[in-house]
Amino acid sequence: MRQLCKGNVAVVKGAIQAGCRAFYGYPITPASEIAEAAALYLPQIGGTFVQAESEVASINMVYGASAAGVRVMTASSGPGVSLMQEGISYIAGAELPCVIVDVVRGGPGLGNIAPEQSDYFAMVKGGGHGNYRNFVLAPASVQEMCDLTIRAFDIADRYRNPVVILTDGYVGQMMETLELEEREVTLPEKPWAVKGNRETRQNLVTSIHLEIDQLEAHNRHLEAKYQEAAKHEVLYEEYLTDDAEVLVVGYGIVSRVLRSTVEQVRKFGLRAGLFRPISLWPFPTEALLAAAEKCRKVLVVEMSTGQMVEDVRLSLNGVIPVELYSRVGGNVPSAEEVRDKLLASAADLVVAR
Amino acid sequence: MRQLCKGNVAVVKGAIQAGCRAFYGYPITPASEIAEAAALYLPQIGGTFVQAESEVASINMVYGASAAGVRVMTASSGPGVSLMQEGISYIAGAELPCVIVDVVRGGPGLGNIAPEQSDYFAMVKGGGHGNYRNFVLAPASVQEMCDLTIRAFDIADRYRNPVVILTDGYVGQMMETLELEEREVTLPEKPWAVKGNRETRQNLVTSIHLEIDQLEAHNRHLEAKYQEAAKHEVLYEEYLTDDAEVLVVGYGIVSRVLRSTVEQVRKFGLRAGLFRPISLWPFPTEALLAAAEKCRKVLVVEMSTGQMVEDVRLSLNGVIPVELYSRVGGNVPSAEEVRDKLLASAADLVVAR
Amino acid sequence: MRQLCKGNVAVVKGAIQAGCRAFYGYPITPASEIAEAAALYLPQIGGTFVQAESEVASINMVYGASAAGVRVMTASSGPGVSLMQEGISYIAGAELPCVIVDVVRGGPGLGNIAPEQSDYFAMVKGGGHGNYRNFVLAPASVQEMCDLTIRAFDIADRYRNPVVILTDGYVGQMMETLELEEREVTLPEKPWAVKGNRETRQNLVTSIHLEIDQLEAHNRHLEAKYQEAAKHEVLYEEYLTDDAEVLVVGYGIVSRVLRSTVEQVRKFGLRAGLFRPISLWPFPTEALLAAAEKCRKVLVVEMSTGQMVEDVRLSLNGVIPVELYSRVGGNVPSAEEVRDKLLASAADLVVAR
Amino acid sequence: MRQLCKGNVAVVKGAIQAGCRAFYGYPITPASEIAEAAALYLPQIGGTFVQAESEVASINMVYGASAAGVRVMTASSGPGVSLMQEGISYIAGAELPCVIVDVVRGGPGLGNIAPEQSDYFAMVKGGGHGNYRNFVLAPASVQEMCDLTIRAFDIADRYRNPVVILTDGYVGQMMETLELEEREVTLPEKPWAVKGNRETRQNLVTSIHLEIDQLEAHNRHLEAKYQEAAKHEVLYEEYLTDDAEVLVVGYGIVSRVLRSTVEQVRKFGLRAGLFRPISLWPFPTEALLAAAEKCRKVLVVEMSTGQMVEDVRLSLNGVIPVELYSRVGGNVPSAEEVRDKLLASAADLVVAR
Repeated sequence: MRQLCKGNVAVVKGAIQAGCRAFYGYPITPASEIAEAAALYLPQIGGTFVQAESEVASINMVYGASAAGVRVMTASSGPGVSLMQEGISYIAGAELPCVIVDVVRGGPGLGNIAPEQSDYFAMVKGGGHGNYRNFVLAPASVQEMCDLTIRAFDIADRYRNPVVILTDGYVGQMMETLELEEREVTLPEKPWAVKGNRETRQNLVTSIHLEIDQLEAHNRHLEAKYQEAAKHEVLYEEYLTDDAEVLVVGYGIVSRVLRSTVEQVRKFGLRAGLFRPISLWPFPTEALLAAAEKCRKVLVVEMSTGQMVEDVRLSLNGVIPVELYSRVGGNVPSAEEVRDKLLASAADLVVAR
Repeated sequence: MRQLCKGNVAVVKGAIQAGCRAFYGYPITPASEIAEAAALYLPQIGGTFVQAESEVASINMVYGASAAGVRVMTASSGPGVSLMQEGISYIAGAELPCVIVDVVRGGPGLGNIAPEQSDYFAMVKGGGHGNYRNFVLAPASVQEMCDLTIRAFDIADRYRNPVVILTDGYVGQMMETLELEEREVTLPEKPWAVKGNRETRQNLVTSIHLEIDQLEAHNRHLEAKYQEAAKHEVLYEEYLTDDAEVLVVGYGIVSRVLRSTVEQVRKFGLRAGLFRPISLWPFPTEALLAAAEKCRKVLVVEMSTGQMVEDVRLSLNGVIPVELYSRVGGNVPSAEEVRDKLLASAADLVVAR
Repeated sequence: MRQLCKGNVAVVKGAIQAGCRAFYGYPITPASEIAEAAALYLPQIGGTFVQAESEVASINMVYGASAAGVRVMTASSGPGVSLMQEGISYIAGAELPCVIVDVVRGGPGLGNIAPEQSDYFAMVKGGGHGNYRNFVLAPASVQEMCDLTIRAFDIADRYRNPVVILTDGYVGQMMETLELEEREVTLPEKPWAVKGNRETRQNLVTSIHLEIDQLEAHNRHLEAKYQEAAKHEVLYEEYLTDDAEVLVVGYGIVSRVLRSTVEQVRKFGLRAGLFRPISLWPFPTEALLAAAEKCRKVLVVEMSTGQMVEDVRLSLNGVIPVELYSRVGGNVPSAEEVRDKLLASAADLVVAR
Repeated sequence: MRQLCKGNVAVVKGAIQAGCRAFYGYPITPASEIAEAAALYLPQIGGTFVQAESEVASINMVYGASAAGVRVMTASSGPGVSLMQEGISYIAGAELPCVIVDVVRGGPGLGNIAPEQSDYFAMVKGGGHGNYRNFVLAPASVQEMCDLTIRAFDIADRYRNPVVILTDGYVGQMMETLELEEREVTLPEKPWAVKGNRETRQNLVTSIHLEIDQLEAHNRHLEAKYQEAAKHEVLYEEYLTDDAEVLVVGYGIVSRVLRSTVEQVRKFGLRAGLFRPISLWPFPTEALLAAAEKCRKVLVVEMSTGQMVEDVRLSLNGVIPVELYSRVGGNVPSAEEVRDKLLASAADLVVAR
């Protein structure tokens, strides 16, 4: 079914398609439509929506519902997801699946309500305590807000771990066509869940491991899981990289700008290509390296003062020079300003022709 | 004055020497002695100690006291500092000075109360939302718990930014000799503070910048400040690096183990050196590169599954191979196990002789 | 259907019969089985159970669900209902229906978990701020735990006001036969509710009336409602009062003891009768006066240091002397000790024969 | 020293004169000036002011400071004191002294910020759980806001119990002359307090008494204390009661209106007198009875729908008819409207002359 849909609403439509039946959250601009849509749709299909006392309460309710085997999600923006960091660490430690949507706004602190990409570190590196990882997916369209949310629930259950949809106020607020197919949901068995019945009474969901060798073993188990996931859950997109001399790298809304930039600079004779990470963790290190090592220059464009660029540098490990073009505060870079930046920075390549 | 002192207590003695007059916190193992000592000593000198309702409340009280111009601190461990991430982002955004001590315990989630170094990402990369940085100092002795805390208050005021003392249960709990000198405290003027008097009535302390160009300018201002700080506030220690072929890198308690490792492997004919970052942010990138580029191999030892190792790799940018030796769950690596790891991994260098 | 049932569980069975579809609460001994049964049964019929962050959160969730037109309840014991006092005042002020169960335990403060009747003032006089009243019903058996809960939901909707089931750990924990009939629930229309649809979009549920004449009018409206309710919602039970010379007065579990006391003292030649208030507010003033004015003496028996006795005195207004026999701390008076007290205190009447 | 002072500020000046050195609270109209003045003055004398996270946090900080032997207070209005009910019950149960100021505003719920007397039940009957009593003092002038606060601290320490200053937005906000004398504060010894030193290490401050006979004994101990207090701590004022035929009864701001009413109706030939309870608990039962039994009629005037009138009726126990004249919502009755009410209701007495 084709429909015109807002990004934040598409998240909820995807979640419901994925069998999500519980949402706990607290409204915050620019993520509030997610709570609103969840409050509207979930009760209609026998699901639960609760506006909790705070984001701290929300994430702990997510913990509880997930421990009971329910597909569950929450959504917020910067200040709210910061408040959830303790809970996220507990959920990862207890190996519980859940989906968390972060519609990033300008920071730090109160900042403003315009789009940024400045929660990358907080979500990708893990802003909670201890050794754990969030899976992080970065949609760039309304359709992907839906599709990646569906995928997020599957990944969450497969690895029993939080999955973050890292998006921004721009993608969350914009309206586009959404193609929504009826999807047969086969929910996985969760024999580890505590379902309030006799069979699951012995199950224990916890993140505590008091004995040090036991906690070390638990951390190794998590680490092995993450390494395995890193082999299978990488997502990215390339555009005109085959013959590219310069590679631009950006995710989310930025990647849409960069597609246009690539086309524009090619008219100037500069063979640019676009590499767009879709999974920010696991980061598409190998694919990026493969795309980049044919190039002479890499330009990362981020709506932050430079966060993903660290993962780009770690991936390329000095093989190719990496530059950063950054806009913040809610300013989305235009295709033209990036074009000009790129032409200036790769002037030798343009002239060479 | 020489005295036998616990690491967690030395933090408070340093804080008081530095003119700290307010502590807001909530007890948690293995950081509780900091709250206990603050509760004991601060009232004796006219200072304030408050056990708040929660870590969320604590960090917001820190915000308030700092906005009033008082030197103020809090302390906690993993779960507690995770709860503070929103408040830390607000404090950094509002450009307020404060000192936060994280006595790291095993994670993620409840984990256990044994030492780890697994909050590196959460504190060094910034687990709160938005573009900001924490200064992070990592003491390795009781003396440094005191001295770096004093330094932390100076840095905090100089840059109007949170400074984190990142330590672990081992350093926090151990007792060593502490040399405590009377120190003349010259507190800086804080004309920006809101002191409840007529002169400061117009001052506004806030992190909100609704207009996007204004928030971009604010972020650029913060960024410039951080770049300036990165030039001046780097701290590190080297041991036997002059002729080293292999470089071991570790911070905090690990650096003490590695010092012994270095001595041991030299007896086997392997010329090892130790590089110990003391400031984790700003990270001693240039000094590390200088020390490492003479070597053939770098081994990072961390009590995490690999967090600081990313900053080591970013610093060396592919120039030298970097390996990681990791222990977690509260297991502190012994000098001997690292020695054996090092000898095995650098067998070619040993044999070559 | 006849079944053996615990008092606390009977409350939930009654609530479901009454069409209650939402429960928000936080467990506390001796009320926890209510939350437990609600968590078990409500989801089975498409209802909602949420364990909130605290009792403060619980009562505000009750506010929200009630505003949406759902039959909703919560349950707790002393410390928890004290935390709800602000919310209860808001619910009464906004004229929202809900049912609150207080399974009284020993107080004040932490006290213990044994039964008392010491929350009478807090629930009957209204422990929240402002001029409002709770309806208060006091069951004395498992059957009544169910039946009065059903009645509570009807009263709540009829008057749009909180209704309290005031019981104690004894009645809550004991098991008795429960006769549970299928009951056709005709839920009342609630045109004032905010249901998330177009029709109710203009509805406003609030307790704020900033203009003083408007708030005075609102208070008069509430007062008129309470006066009307006082005419129609009085409930009480009499036993052997027709020829009684002395009247014993007690509610809840105490009334069961007193029934036995009455029978015992009659064997000693003292014609005693029992008056048992079932509705504590509205208090059965007229019926009590009618029963008492034929007597020479009234003895109130309470598991408190004297709370309901004030309402007895207000009702009798000096017409008959009123004495109090009190047990506290969890001690339930025995029929025998009250018998002896009564025989001693009414010795003249016994002897006179 | 004579000065022009606001009622809310006079409270703090009195508190400081009384040796109060800690204030924990959260601002709310019309009580905010108390927090403001406490924030200003307490630090100047080495005291502590903390704006807590909430009223729940505030009252528990009061508990803590009081347990440490410090003279401590908080202040709020209706919604805030309702949130404190659990804490107040704990403080009374643990036998800790503290002073709580309730500057009553219009209720229930949000209501408005205009003056009412509708928290009488919540404060005088005890809105928290369990058998306990608050001492309650009702000032009627700025001078009394100061003087009764001083007295409150003495009573609190003498009986180790919360003392409430029950006032309203009118008295709190008005400015009058305050005569403030330097007062030698002799703080009582508190051998029961837990002061963080060796001598008091064994002291235990708690409200828990798990064993039922022990809790019954504790309740009897509290009850005996309250009965003793009721003999010594009664406060009231009479005006022209010697020859009065009708008695008007009112407290706080109402008593000032009634004084004028009494004078006015006497010009019409009606011999009225005024009885003003100053201590609402213990209620001046005997004095009121003595004053009233010479009269033919009693008129209670309250800014509530009728709360103190119950204590008047309990005191008079049917000896004299009691009427109520009530204004609410923030409307303060005028001397003239009460005069007319009184003349109409006692028309027989006027005419008889």
